Parts: sequence; structure tokens; C-alpha cells
Amino acid sequence: RLKTWENIFKQMLINEKEWQTIWLDDSEKFVKVIDQTKLPHEFAIKDIKSSDDAALAIKDMIIRGAPLIGVMGAYGLMLGLKEDPSDENLERTFIKLQSTRPTAVNLNWALKRIYNLVKVCPLEERFETAKKEAKLIENEDINMCEKIGDNGLEIIKKIALNNKSKKINILTHCNAGWLATVNWGTALAPIYKAHRIGINVHVWVDETRPRNQGASLTTFELKHENVPHTVITDNAGGHLMQHKKVDLVIVGSDRTTIKGDVCNKIGTYLKALAAKANNIPFYAALPISTLDWDIYDGVQNIPIEARCEEEVTHISGLNSKGYIEKVRLVHNECKAFNPAFDVTPNELVSGLITERGVCLANEKAIKKLYQK
Amino acid sequence: RLKTWENIFKQMLINEKEWQTIWLDDSEKFVKVIDQTKLPHEFAIKDIKSSDDAALAIKDMIIRGAPLIGVMGAYGLMLGLKEDPSDENLERTFIKLQSTRPTAVNLNWALKRIYNLVKVCPLEERFETAKKEAKLIENEDINMCEKIGDNGLEIIKKIALNNKSKKINILTHCNAGWLATVNWGTALAPIYKAHRIGINVHVWVDETRPRNQGASLTTFELKHENVPHTVITDNAGGHLMQHKKVDLVIVGSDRTTIKGDVCNKIGTYLKALAAKANNIPFYAALPISTLDWDIYDGVQNIPIEARCEEEVTHISGLNSKGYIEKVRLVHNECKAFNPAFDVTPNELVSGLITERGVCLANEKAIKKLYQK
Repeated sequence: RLKTWENIFKQMLINEKEWQTIWLDDSEKFVKVIDQTKLPHEFAIKDIKSSDDAALAIKDMIIRGAPLIGVMGAYGLMLGLKEDPSDENLERTFIKLQSTRPTAVNLNWALKRIYNLVKVCPLEERFETAKKEAKLIENEDINMCEKIGDNGLEIIKKIALNNKSKKINILTHCNAGWLATVNWGTALAPIYKAHRIGINVHVWVDETRPRNQGASLTTFELKHENVPHTVITDNAGGHLMQHKKVDLVIVGSDRTTIKGDVCNKIGTYLKALAAKANNIPFYAALPISTLDWDIYDGVQNIPIEARCEEEVTHISGLNSKGYIEKVRLVHNECKAFNPAFDVTPNELVSGLITERGVCLANEKAIKKLYQK
Repeated sequence: RLKTWENIFKQMLINEKEWQTIWLDDSEKFVKVIDQTKLPHEFAIKDIKSSDDAALAIKDMIIRGAPLIGVMGAYGLMLGLKEDPSDENLERTFIKLQSTRPTAVNLNWALKRIYNLVKVCPLEERFETAKKEAKLIENEDINMCEKIGDNGLEIIKKIALNNKSKKINILTHCNAGWLATVNWGTALAPIYKAHRIGINVHVWVDETRPRNQGASLTTFELKHENVPHTVITDNAGGHLMQHKKVDLVIVGSDRTTIKGDVCNKIGTYLKALAAKANNIPFYAALPISTLDWDIYDGVQNIPIEARCEEEVTHISGLNSKGYIEKVRLVHNECKAFNPAFDVTPNELVSGLITERGVCLANEKAIKKLYQK
């Protein structure tokens, strides 16, 4: 969203203007989002006018990223209550939104937060109550990401102090930038903070097949923030680490277990293995809301969403005529399997960067941080 | 090439006819190849009529795969000698062909073999001598791959014996199938042998960005041999291994050091790390000719070819109108880095499958096997 503040930019930039990924329309009756399916080729805004729109926006990944999905869920429930504030519709809309993405834990968290509040409200107050709370979640998300940025910045500063004249090479997977949140991002927030205070950072961006959120979204963000970056295939990171071309890995997390296992975009686990083998620090940046207190062993117990085969067998890009086109990559009978996430066991994680501080990826440290 | 033998199929099939990737035309004046840049969408044959054609065929990856590049190199030198059998042209053509792909060690091996032989020949015999030797290399390649298949089959048989009723899931990266050789392949040869004797195998095919040889070539081969297979993104293998969905990994090798380090398509190293972490056997299948006796530590000393950025920033596939089209994946200013290979250190390799037998990936075992 275009902001008119004339002081220093406090949000993320597209073409030198401040935007966020989601905002309540001035009418306060519906929400608007940046349509992420068209990036980086087209920059388009989409109206989300109903709870069905909201559910589709999550399912079709018009918006994506665990924190942003949570905010969209909250606004989606608000839109449902505008349509019909009854208990039945509250339940129905809750379930509809909850079932859009099974892995992201803060969708559930945000939905429950709105649900519990409006459940005890008179019907005529439910829409306004949900709106207020959704706005609050939106603002909390921005503040939380800024704090993740500040806390992660300290890690980059330490690396910079030990390598005075050197460029700091940071590898990231998928998009855990501001397009995955309302603003600032999680994994990218420390990088933006570092770049803005003048630390010489360069980002290796995993393209992140199948949906290529790295190639399409992370590079788009970094370009508009003027952060030097290079896209690589998901296959290249191990080689770069073997050759000391990576100083730090930062990724996001869609769900974090109480023992510190990190569930993030498929392929994260492979990068964590390579980081460990090459003594490179590997951090996950995440809001405390991604913590799942019910799960200890993430590899065994986090359900992994299997998405449609077409995401693997086909890919979209800009054709030579300037149109977005989908092309098929395999023979026409080829089967594909498409798990969307994987789990990185805590022994491969150097630490968790949260809005409350940085902690080791183990139960004791996580509990201590949480009690802060 | 269509073969007319009426006994059991001794070569690999496309539409139930036997083919090989390269063959001398009936005129014996030039060679023909399957154009691999158009697979799996179009099946086309290309004439290679000059040494320039041969160099371009290697450089543009009309043919690829270490063993096949070697055979193409041999025929390329033959074509050069047809054009001009002088010492000067022999040197020039040797260098031209050698410089097409820096990593593959048997290109150099095949070129030297022809060179050393014709160098001591009268000018008028050079073309015929080169032709005979190139044909010999072609036939040796077929026999060698069959033996790799037989030796690797024993590993699959052992796994099958321990899992009587179960499907054997084999993961492979890139294309080390018959399209990478003259026939049979290296990593896929044991799989074809296993499938043909009735072992229940299923292959997880890494798509293998950036050039997607897995998605386009390996799936094409497996389809025509009726071997059950599923394409996955390069990111998915770690997750599959964590969940015991992979029983065995077999990859090829473009260059193998004397200590047993394996240089193969970028991303192989990440799969080897995941296999080790999950106690899954990881084998490289390779001709003895990929052994580089001059290099001990592959990570430090094998030069890695960096290919053009466009292979990462763009991708080709079949569009909705049935044409092969290239689309851009990133914003229009985005830089990319494209290392084509990586090195898997020997401690991650369970063994090497060669035409002389299977050995451990260490200097002592390799030397013992070589002396057989």
C-alpha cells in the first residue's frame, strides 16, 4: 500500500514507494492484496470481497507465506461474518478457511483468535469485533517482523565484524520476505536491516521449485530494496557451501516444534544438511506463533501437504511476446509427486530468530524464550 | 537407430523399436544422433556432417552425458580428418572439440585415443583409421554399459531379496541413462536389467534443474522401457529419504577421482548428504574411463564448468499450442550463477558400479579393481 509518511521509509519498497501485502480498503468493507501469482512479471492488486475470495486467495496462493496466510485468514473470517454473523456460518467459514492449507500453523492460530473473540459477542457486533482484531493481527505482524529483523541483524553484524572488508553471502530458500508477511518479512528482515545500515550483503536466492517463490518473489523484493542478489537452482547451494561462498543461511518456518524442528518449504532440509557438513550457520527466522506446542518430533508428526502434480510437470514464466505462459516439462503421461514442505531436525539448526530474541533450537531454550 | 534383429531386444527402446543415441550413417561419411534438446516433446534425428557440427552438438547439448560426449568427440575428430587430414588440422580439431565441455573426462580420453593412433598414420589413412577406432569406442561403450548394468543389478537383487513383496524405490538425478551413452546407460542400466528380469522397481526422477535432463530425458527413457517412474523436484528427495520412500540412490559420474570422489550433475552432493543421513545406499555408476588418475581431492581440484545464466533464468517446455517455448522465470535484471556439476566426497558414496565390478569408493579398492 502506498504510504504518505514523509519520514524515513518504515516499510518495504516497490518502485521507491512503501507497500504492504494486505490492507483493509478505505471503505473498511473488504481487503486488498498484491496478487503474488503474477510477480515478478506483473504487479497487480486484487480485491478480496468475500470469505470465498479469501479461501481461494490462500488456496491458489494469490497470497502465501505462513504469517500472511494467518492475517488473510483473520480477514477472511471477518468477511464471512459480514455475509452472515450466525454461529453456523462462523463455524462453516472457520472450517472453510482452515482447510485451505494444512501445514501452516498460524492460519489456525489467527482463525482461533478471531473465533474465540467473536463467539462470545452479540451477532451485530461480530463483524466490527473481527475487523478490529484482524487489524490488530496485521499490525502485530508488522511489529513482530521488525523485531525479527532487529534480532537477526545482530547475527549478521557479528559475521560482518569478523570479515571486515568482505561481502557477506547469505543463502535463502523460498520466499520468507515481506511478501510472505504483511511487511519486512521473517528470513529477509535481518537482511533488509543489514543492508539499510550499510553492511555489504549479497543474497543467493534458491529458485525454489516447484512454485519458484525464490526466483519470482524473493528476487523481486530484493531488486526493489536494491539488495545485491543472484538466483541459483535449488541444486547449487551445496556446491557453493563446499567452496565457502556462503557465510550464513537464513530460512523461514511454517511450523516449529517444541524441540526446535523446523518445517519449511520443500528442499530446506537439503540445505541444512549441506550447511552442517560445511560448518555454515543455519538459522530459521520465525514468529513465535509458528510454534506448535503439541508436536515434539517434526519429521514423524508434522503432516506434509502434497500439492497438485501440475506444479511439478508444468511451469509458468514470461514468453517472448511478454505474456505469462505455462509450459509442460515432461512427457504427457508423466506422474509427479509434490510434497510442499519438509522438516529440518533441530540438530541441523544453529538457532531460531524470533521477535523475542534468538535462541538455540532445543526445548529448554525455546521454553525459556517463550516465558520472556 | 532402428535395428532389425528379431531376437530379444538387446538395446533400448523407443516406441518398441531398438535405437541408439549415435551411429555412423550407411554412407559411412557422417554420423547421425537423436536431438536431445527437443525431448521429450519431439523425437528428431540430426545429421552431424562436420567437426564444427560435432563441436556444436556437444556445446549446445544436442547430445550430452560423459560417455556419449566421448563417442561424439571421437567421431568429431574423424569428421575433422575427412575435411583435412593434416597435422595442423588434427591439432586444431582436437583443441576445438576438447574445449566444448571442460568437466567430462572421457571426452579427453576418447580424443587422445584417436589422436595417438592417427598421429602415426600416413595422411591418406587417417580418416579410415579414425572411423574404425570411433566405431570401436562406440561398441565398447555399449558393452561397457551392459556390464555396468549386470554389476549394478546384483545390488538391486540383494535389496529385492530382503524386501520380497515390496516395490524397490530407486532415486536418480539427471540423466545417466542410455541417452547419456550409446546404449543402456550407466546409472539406469542396472534398473533396466532389474525391470527386464521382473524385479518390481519404481524410479524417483529428480527433474534436475537447470536443464531438466531428469524431467525431459530420464522420464522419456523410462516411459519407453515401461519402467514405473515419478518425477519430483530436486528439493523433494531429502523428504522422501527421511520417510523411507527411497531404498537406493544411483547416479552417474562425469569424473571420478582416484580417492573415489564423484563429480556429477549439480545437486548430486545434496542427495548424497541426505542418503548418508538416512542410511540409504548411494552408488555412482561409471565407466572406468571417467577415472581421473591425476586428481585425488575432487572438491578442491576438479574444475567446475559455469554455464550461461539463461539456463537458470529461463526454461523451455511445451506450450498449450503444442510448440516448444522458452519462458523467463525471474525479473528482467536478475543475475544468475550456474555451476553445472558438483563433487560428492567419497565418504558419502557407498560404492562405485563399473564395468569391471563394484568397489568401495576409496583409493585401495579402486586400484585393485583397475588391476583386474
